[in-house]
Amino acid sequence: MDDLILALGRIVGSAHVLTADAITPEYTHDEALTVAAVTPRAVVRPGSTEDVSAILALCDQQRVPVAARGGGTGLSGACTPLPDGIVLSLERMRRIVEIDGENQCAVCEPFVRLAELYAAAEDRQLMYPIVPGENSATVGGNVGTNAGGMQAVKYGVTRHQVLGLTAVLASGEVIRAGGKFVKVASGYDLTQLIIGSEGTLAIVTEVILKLVPRLPYRSTILAPFHTLEEVTRSVPKLLALGRQPLMLEYIDLMTMASILQRSGMDLGVPQEIRDRALAYLVIVTEGRDEERTAEDAQALGEHCQELGALDVFMLPSQAGRKLIEAREQSFWAAKAAGAGEIIDVVGPRAQIAAFVERASQVAQRNAAFVVGCGHAGDGNVHFAIFHGEAEVRNAVVRELLQTGIELGGAISGEHGIGLAKKAFYMEFEDPVRLALQRRIKAAFDPHNTLNPGTIFD
Amino acid sequence: MDDLILALGRIVGSAHVLTADAITPEYTHDEALTVAAVTPRAVVRPGSTEDVSAILALCDQQRVPVAARGGGTGLSGACTPLPDGIVLSLERMRRIVEIDGENQCAVCEPFVRLAELYAAAEDRQLMYPIVPGENSATVGGNVGTNAGGMQAVKYGVTRHQVLGLTAVLASGEVIRAGGKFVKVASGYDLTQLIIGSEGTLAIVTEVILKLVPRLPYRSTILAPFHTLEEVTRSVPKLLALGRQPLMLEYIDLMTMASILQRSGMDLGVPQEIRDRALAYLVIVTEGRDEERTAEDAQALGEHCQELGALDVFMLPSQAGRKLIEAREQSFWAAKAAGAGEIIDVVGPRAQIAAFVERASQVAQRNAAFVVGCGHAGDGNVHFAIFHGEAEVRNAVVRELLQTGIELGGAISGEHGIGLAKKAFYMEFEDPVRLALQRRIKAAFDPHNTLNPGTIFD
Repeated sequence: MDDLILALGRIVGSAHVLTADAITPEYTHDEALTVAAVTPRAVVRPGSTEDVSAILALCDQQRVPVAARGGGTGLSGACTPLPDGIVLSLERMRRIVEIDGENQCAVCEPFVRLAELYAAAEDRQLMYPIVPGENSATVGGNVGTNAGGMQAVKYGVTRHQVLGLTAVLASGEVIRAGGKFVKVASGYDLTQLIIGSEGTLAIVTEVILKLVPRLPYRSTILAPFHTLEEVTRSVPKLLALGRQPLMLEYIDLMTMASILQRSGMDLGVPQEIRDRALAYLVIVTEGRDEERTAEDAQALGEHCQELGALDVFMLPSQAGRKLIEAREQSFWAAKAAGAGEIIDVVGPRAQIAAFVERASQVAQRNAAFVVGCGHAGDGNVHFAIFHGEAEVRNAVVRELLQTGIELGGAISGEHGIGLAKKAFYMEFEDPVRLALQRRIKAAFDPHNTLNPGTIFD
Repeated sequence: MDDLILALGRIVGSAHVLTADAITPEYTHDEALTVAAVTPRAVVRPGSTEDVSAILALCDQQRVPVAARGGGTGLSGACTPLPDGIVLSLERMRRIVEIDGENQCAVCEPFVRLAELYAAAEDRQLMYPIVPGENSATVGGNVGTNAGGMQAVKYGVTRHQVLGLTAVLASGEVIRAGGKFVKVASGYDLTQLIIGSEGTLAIVTEVILKLVPRLPYRSTILAPFHTLEEVTRSVPKLLALGRQPLMLEYIDLMTMASILQRSGMDLGVPQEIRDRALAYLVIVTEGRDEERTAEDAQALGEHCQELGALDVFMLPSQAGRKLIEAREQSFWAAKAAGAGEIIDVVGPRAQIAAFVERASQVAQRNAAFVVGCGHAGDGNVHFAIFHGEAEVRNAVVRELLQTGIELGGAISGEHGIGLAKKAFYMEFEDPVRLALQRRIKAAFDPHNTLNPGTIFD
């Protein structure tokens, strides 16, 4: 056994250092469709911040690359290790340290799964509002990618909920940034910088998350529109009403068909409308009393009709919940249907229709299928790309990302760059900004120990 | 005339380079009470991002320190120049480039004053929700200090509204970060890192700010409590109702007296209650319809009474507005009354009462007066410190800041560190975090051209 493995065993106990055949396949990849699995030299399972500190100090000194791993549900390949590196699996650090009702926050170790956090908050009549759709994802992974999801239109993304964190630098030094407070103007905001850095700047070992009051009522409406352009044009007007929808999602024809088929749901939309509807808008309102919540939904629905919706359906609460759950599964539906690539371009919300229009031209020109849905309120479009040849899919993705950037957007709204989109990121990113990011990376991690080659080379 | 001045004149035109007697006193200070004015070598007034780029490239090459200046309303001395440096006054860059109703955002040059932005947004039925209380402050200055204010309890702080920015590095290189979108996961968040960096990392020349729908109705209630502890204990319970107050402010006895005296208001609180009330809670609700807004205020008021308020007063809308305006002037009231120091410690909101209690012990021990008010919903306490001797005031401030940190807080919630709090910041800041910030500073500004010696040495 090599010296590194022995030294790691002295830190965490040899039972928590896996090598060779003990490394099960799940440690070698996440859910990105285009990133090959890699078996690392070892998987190490720290139990504490001190463990993480000692592991990083050792690896940094010995120039061993470290890939941190949470729930492994990411879509960018950011937890993929290098063959000569280690996977730092945070699976033992899964404690909800505290739900602090007075300060309305949760203190979590990184491997707390979202489902656990949702339940713990609910027990205290609070809510953690970030719902990326995969409840087995972990808090640490969400911080790494700045996860978003369907409720971002009301509550923002992970970045807006993280009040503070404990993080270990590549050197093994431990920093605490932020705290149980919602604002601060005392030096550089290290918390915000680490969020979304995909494990390349520091390893987060504890997170303080803001919670919000739980509002018990929800209403869901479904509005079929003839075109996506009508949907897009409606979104700013619906937001301008000031009724704060919790979700504002569009679903295209194909995605809706696949959602309905997979879930076996019947939403009660008559065939004649389904024949004419190329895009659906789903709006969810929430509130502390039933009447206002329904009233808000109704008002949004009426406005949809004024804006050209073919009809508006108030869904019974169970059907509403089921539709949202099915929508959350759209990645799996696309994967099951054979999608070879997934993208989540973000841009000005008023540009969604133009983007989707140009995307369909790109698809046609390449004889590929591009189907999708998206967070219409956020300008975040999710596309699944179907074509038999990887080279064509890659060309389509490249063109779609370039189009998104030309329309004032960015490559990813919530999935991250990781390895999956790195080549495109490096091609399209402004060189000055890229050079600056490399200097920031060096300020945190001078020996390039943490997730080297992720986001950029 | 020296070569530098000539070269600056070639960039912006000699009319926009002020030297010697042409430098009026306003360029030499901000509103910090404890930072001495400094006359710079020159004041330079760029008209564009290109001007700023050329000026910084020149100054960086010649190792001339640059202090950026917006409205000069800051309370940390962060725009104070060095005697051998220049003031980069952004006063000519005052254009609201665009109010984009579809994407609900404003694009502003840095010297747009808040009052102008509020008005332009209102014209489009939108609102810029960050209200630090000084409407002559500029957008650029707000970004520099991550300004907060009374509406932060509902809308967050400047950081949460900035979607993107254009900034010039010390080298003269220009970067654009973020965009007209509300979420992104594409590389490090340079936008968030630059916000709150008090002019030390880059000069912001354009900002994209999120706007929210304007909700036309407001209701204000005033709840006198016997003790501040009762106020503090009430805050989490009031927030837990999920009625989203727009403001949740506490005002202590002395501050209330000075506010009422200065404004000549009578809030209709009977003498017998004023005699017993040591702290007041002011709650403002807002909404899109009058009935709900009043209902929310009423419900919050009833809850205050259950929580021990001596009484609850629904203020007529004019009186409510006047009280808030007067509260915004509390800095000036304190200054006029002879306050020698102002602090704005932030901490866990549940710790406010403990903090204020310990602060009053510190004051007594030093025979000083400490009076205040604060953003109770945010755990952000504003104190004015009165004592004849600067040395005693300084000792009191030091002890108060240390106490705030011990209680889990930070030195400043929204004023910033600047020069005014630098010595304390360097004393109390974790050395690892300080070293990391120095490396980040070097990644942006290797020759220490931008605001050297601000925040830390």
